[in-house]
Amino acid sequence: MDEPVFRVAVVGSTGYGGGELVRLLARHPGVRIEALGARGRDDEPIGQSHPHLAGTGYRVSDELPGELDAVFVSLPHGAASETVAELAKRLVVIDLGPDFRLRDPADYPRWYGFEHPRPDLLDHSVYGLPELHREELGRLGRHGIVASPGCYATATLLALAPLAGAGLIADVVVDAKSGVSGAGREARAQFLFGEVNESVRAYGVGGHRHVAEMEQELGRLAPAPLGPIDFLPHLIPMTRGILAACHVRPTRPTSQAELDDLYRAFFASERFVELAPEPPATKHVLGSNFARVHVHADDRTGRVLVLSAIDNLVKGAAGQAVQAFNVVFGLPEESGLEQLPLSP
Amino acid sequence: MDEPVFRVAVVGSTGYGGGELVRLLARHPGVRIEALGARGRDDEPIGQSHPHLAGTGYRVSDELPGELDAVFVSLPHGAASETVAELAKRLVVIDLGPDFRLRDPADYPRWYGFEHPRPDLLDHSVYGLPELHREELGRLGRHGIVASPGCYATATLLALAPLAGAGLIADVVVDAKSGVSGAGREARAQFLFGEVNESVRAYGVGGHRHVAEMEQELGRLAPAPLGPIDFLPHLIPMTRGILAACHVRPTRPTSQAELDDLYRAFFASERFVELAPEPPATKHVLGSNFARVHVHADDRTGRVLVLSAIDNLVKGAAGQAVQAFNVVFGLPEESGLEQLPLSP
Amino acid sequence: MDEPVFRVAVVGSTGYGGGELVRLLARHPGVRIEALGARGRDDEPIGQSHPHLAGTGYRVSDELPGELDAVFVSLPHGAASETVAELAKRLVVIDLGPDFRLRDPADYPRWYGFEHPRPDLLDHSVYGLPELHREELGRLGRHGIVASPGCYATATLLALAPLAGAGLIADVVVDAKSGVSGAGREARAQFLFGEVNESVRAYGVGGHRHVAEMEQELGRLAPAPLGPIDFLPHLIPMTRGILAACHVRPTRPTSQAELDDLYRAFFASERFVELAPEPPATKHVLGSNFARVHVHADDRTGRVLVLSAIDNLVKGAAGQAVQAFNVVFGLPEESGLEQLPLSP
Amino acid sequence: MDEPVFRVAVVGSTGYGGGELVRLLARHPGVRIEALGARGRDDEPIGQSHPHLAGTGYRVSDELPGELDAVFVSLPHGAASETVAELAKRLVVIDLGPDFRLRDPADYPRWYGFEHPRPDLLDHSVYGLPELHREELGRLGRHGIVASPGCYATATLLALAPLAGAGLIADVVVDAKSGVSGAGREARAQFLFGEVNESVRAYGVGGHRHVAEMEQELGRLAPAPLGPIDFLPHLIPMTRGILAACHVRPTRPTSQAELDDLYRAFFASERFVELAPEPPATKHVLGSNFARVHVHADDRTGRVLVLSAIDNLVKGAAGQAVQAFNVVFGLPEESGLEQLPLSP
Repeated sequence: MDEPVFRVAVVGSTGYGGGELVRLLARHPGVRIEALGARGRDDEPIGQSHPHLAGTGYRVSDELPGELDAVFVSLPHGAASETVAELAKRLVVIDLGPDFRLRDPADYPRWYGFEHPRPDLLDHSVYGLPELHREELGRLGRHGIVASPGCYATATLLALAPLAGAGLIADVVVDAKSGVSGAGREARAQFLFGEVNESVRAYGVGGHRHVAEMEQELGRLAPAPLGPIDFLPHLIPMTRGILAACHVRPTRPTSQAELDDLYRAFFASERFVELAPEPPATKHVLGSNFARVHVHADDRTGRVLVLSAIDNLVKGAAGQAVQAFNVVFGLPEESGLEQLPLSP
Repeated sequence: MDEPVFRVAVVGSTGYGGGELVRLLARHPGVRIEALGARGRDDEPIGQSHPHLAGTGYRVSDELPGELDAVFVSLPHGAASETVAELAKRLVVIDLGPDFRLRDPADYPRWYGFEHPRPDLLDHSVYGLPELHREELGRLGRHGIVASPGCYATATLLALAPLAGAGLIADVVVDAKSGVSGAGREARAQFLFGEVNESVRAYGVGGHRHVAEMEQELGRLAPAPLGPIDFLPHLIPMTRGILAACHVRPTRPTSQAELDDLYRAFFASERFVELAPEPPATKHVLGSNFARVHVHADDRTGRVLVLSAIDNLVKGAAGQAVQAFNVVFGLPEESGLEQLPLSP
Repeated sequence: MDEPVFRVAVVGSTGYGGGELVRLLARHPGVRIEALGARGRDDEPIGQSHPHLAGTGYRVSDELPGELDAVFVSLPHGAASETVAELAKRLVVIDLGPDFRLRDPADYPRWYGFEHPRPDLLDHSVYGLPELHREELGRLGRHGIVASPGCYATATLLALAPLAGAGLIADVVVDAKSGVSGAGREARAQFLFGEVNESVRAYGVGGHRHVAEMEQELGRLAPAPLGPIDFLPHLIPMTRGILAACHVRPTRPTSQAELDDLYRAFFASERFVELAPEPPATKHVLGSNFARVHVHADDRTGRVLVLSAIDNLVKGAAGQAVQAFNVVFGLPEESGLEQLPLSP
Repeated sequence: MDEPVFRVAVVGSTGYGGGELVRLLARHPGVRIEALGARGRDDEPIGQSHPHLAGTGYRVSDELPGELDAVFVSLPHGAASETVAELAKRLVVIDLGPDFRLRDPADYPRWYGFEHPRPDLLDHSVYGLPELHREELGRLGRHGIVASPGCYATATLLALAPLAGAGLIADVVVDAKSGVSGAGREARAQFLFGEVNESVRAYGVGGHRHVAEMEQELGRLAPAPLGPIDFLPHLIPMTRGILAACHVRPTRPTSQAELDDLYRAFFASERFVELAPEPPATKHVLGSNFARVHVHADDRTGRVLVLSAIDNLVKGAAGQAVQAFNVVFGLPEESGLEQLPLSP
């Protein structure tokens, strides 16, 4: 291997997102893990919080070392702004939380309930969806903020970006289904096995926070203003995976052939987006960084249906963060992300 | 008990729908099970096909006895038309299949791929959703056909009937999630545990058959013609339950207060429809004949969201059939259907 | 109905055991629910804690009314001793916790880590497994304590009682598998869906508390002292159900025929124990008060294998408590317990 | 990479074992996949049978090419004997089925119900558990048969080999729990999601076939003859994973310290066996080639409990086959097997 090796750390390594970052980075040939941060747990074996990673031999610690090229931050929203801002002065921060995803400071009180402490930085961070922002990522340099997208936003944006770019979205209903790992690892009664198993329910009725990202990014692509997105997420009895069903009323009649051409062209050189000839199952991307997208022109209703499946913890979180990191540091985009999906 | 006791049989008792009929009818105080039909299995204990029912002591048989008041028929589509037509001359047939649900004979080749052998009977059968056709069921008498609704159609119609009746539906996307028991008990690789678990996928893209029922029944209620319904079902990793999310673009602006009044009035005297103050979970109706409906006016998008949860094998199949039977025979509507949901 | 109606209350109604008691008692023809206790929640609709029971219209409250015939107590161990002792002076207490199951006061510090506050009452309470203590339950009268058995103990005792009574147990390994509802409803990270799903693990290695009950009750039946039971429970990814596999080294060679006779005789008049010709699945008793027991003489190893399946929340908790209540009050033993299992 | 690259094929690539072989071999740096065999499917994209592998671009075919170094055979028992025997004349065959695992030809009619067609080869094949037969594997050369162990046998042998070798097993009960993928991918009603979910059951009562392997291999290690193993497998509602609980009555009293030393010494240089300080969960090895073993001296019962967790499709099948292949061909034992477990 002649690839350079960059020194990285993970802040917030004991949650699900953090564990997934360790799983991927530990096998990344261009990376050396220098530290795994975990508040208040100094020098504890990683196996205490992540038994599946015990074999890696890593230990978590309360502090970050001085010499790093990049830090992955996986903390709850609001908790990271200050830390990220400080770190970003001297190294690349890939923030898996929402604190730097939105460009308009007014969106923070509206969607997240807090005033952003550093609105000046919002314009300087890059929304870390490589399929939409590869060039900006490549230009970031050796310090700055990558705001890694939310899981629902990732699935939805990959489904709708070609249509938005072509000015084909008159109106869209996004009905998404997620495994429960998206809710994190905090002990809450509603996420107990006994409550989740053999059940499905919608939540976030009236406005899930990821809508803000979707509207921002699709709006950026669309030639004319888009109306509000009707987004409804569901919790289903599985651990990993998101399937987004996007029901689009097009601005003009279209055809399967036009859609196929549009999507093929849009994703032609994408390593991690697979156009699926059949409606995709989340199991077919499990544990991998792939997204599977299926587009269908429905002659009966005149609508366009786009289905998009990802693993919420990989392409929807840790994998995407690593992919963006690779772009920023000029590594092959698939470094550390070559695992094939695990099925059955 | 002074309730009369009616003699019933189940045709197709070895499938999931059939087993569920036995579970309910065996404890129905107004019913005596005279026969459980199963092609080619004569005098076999029910425990062979349904171990959970072994304790009932019933046996399945290849033939129906002569003296019956009603027959429940749970057979694949197309298989039952002739049998049902013949039996309906002398007794009440509650058909859980689709063969007599649609009024327009042209719908059968279109949606089900067969010419209906008895189009003359379509106008004489009653669509067995008591919440919409209670009076016709009550007038049926002692012979005739009750066409018990499909599971998806039940969830959707209970969600949308008030809006349709009020002329409020301009356009609707129905995005539904179902447990796998709806696919029946036939051994098919795609329904193996290893394929279904930890996965979600859409199917029936471009037109699931239950759309025909939905459009027929909502069209009947609506003051003006409705456009095609965009209906998309999903298979999720659970055994029982359907959740339908109905995203409605209303014909005019409405409000939460108006919707609450509308739904309360529509379902005021319904024993099996519960208006839920929170988005319902399918687990909260598991094993019961209840439907839970939640309506939400979304100020941000201008849409109305209606969520509806049922147990697909009870309110979506066997329970609904028993409910219709009760109405036809003048029994209390909840006879045999008083089980509370099983949770967790 | 000419059955008398007894006035009951549930203390600890918001947990899983409590919810299950409400589900059963609400449909019990010989019972009127007078109060559902829940500390610190006065006059709250039951649907807040148990959405599936919202339709019953009950409300929980912080206090018990004065006029009651029986109280069902479903509280964590140690929490109930004083309450139970006080209530038992004037009415029948069916305690679903372990505080009065063990006869030897020394067992409490040993297995549960607390000194029993009322060792004088241990000899006066009845171990509420009707299959073993029906006569004592029938003699209890109108006040006193029924100590309802633990879920693992129930499955194991029903499996092994015939062998113990016949002096056939030289040595036994009990390897049990349980759904996660047995762990209760408290939010703990290890019982999150993401941790439990797609995984199995043993726990309580070196001594689960239910061993004490098993040894006490089997010891009582056996003609000679039994050695310690090797009991190992497992948590498996399901919500309800316990399967106990009891691997017995017999004191002398036996045969399938002898075992069949022994078990048939032992359970001949038991309403809720079914001898299964095939290894039972927990699904086949789901939601019901049935236990399924299968006994097998293994010629190759010389061992006897007994498998026993129950629903841990019904025959392993609430259903068994209701069954014992029925015996105490002279009601038909199956009153309120006639639900058939729910499958699939 | 200076590693040599060997040319391999997979026979039986469309089942679960076959898919898993492709997943691992496709990323193995010392391997080039020359052919993926599938009877009757010529030149079909792998995505038809394994949608999750669509991105690899492989195609399945009906024939094997001439130039190969090794073939992995994943076929039902009995189906492979002739093929394997023929191929083994000129290349290395790693047979994932049982046809060459047993040394005594009489075991085939007894346990598998067929006379072995090539008893002469049984002594020349190597039982492919590297932890027990590393040297023989290393001496195999460039043609011959590796009989890859059964999944239950792998979990059990890794748990018990140290005790057997030390002459410490007087008697053992092995109670194992498996995910349903072990049953393969053939459509059978008993493995439908609706039958498996929310249920657990024992099967193979009276003698599962893997017992033969266990007794053969433990007998080989033990200084004195071992009695028959009491082995009981269970099907639990998960897709992957086996947990074996081995309840051992030791030949003499032992201690935790002695056991810890014994196990540490035995597995000191094993790359894929991790000694776990806590009872292992199958989720903590999911998708990886690791086995986790936990040993416990139970002072109360005098027994030794050993728990062993593997992924049945990796260390219990495809991963183990690749590991053995690596040993045979002198590659680093972890080549192609470096994936970390996937959790949650």
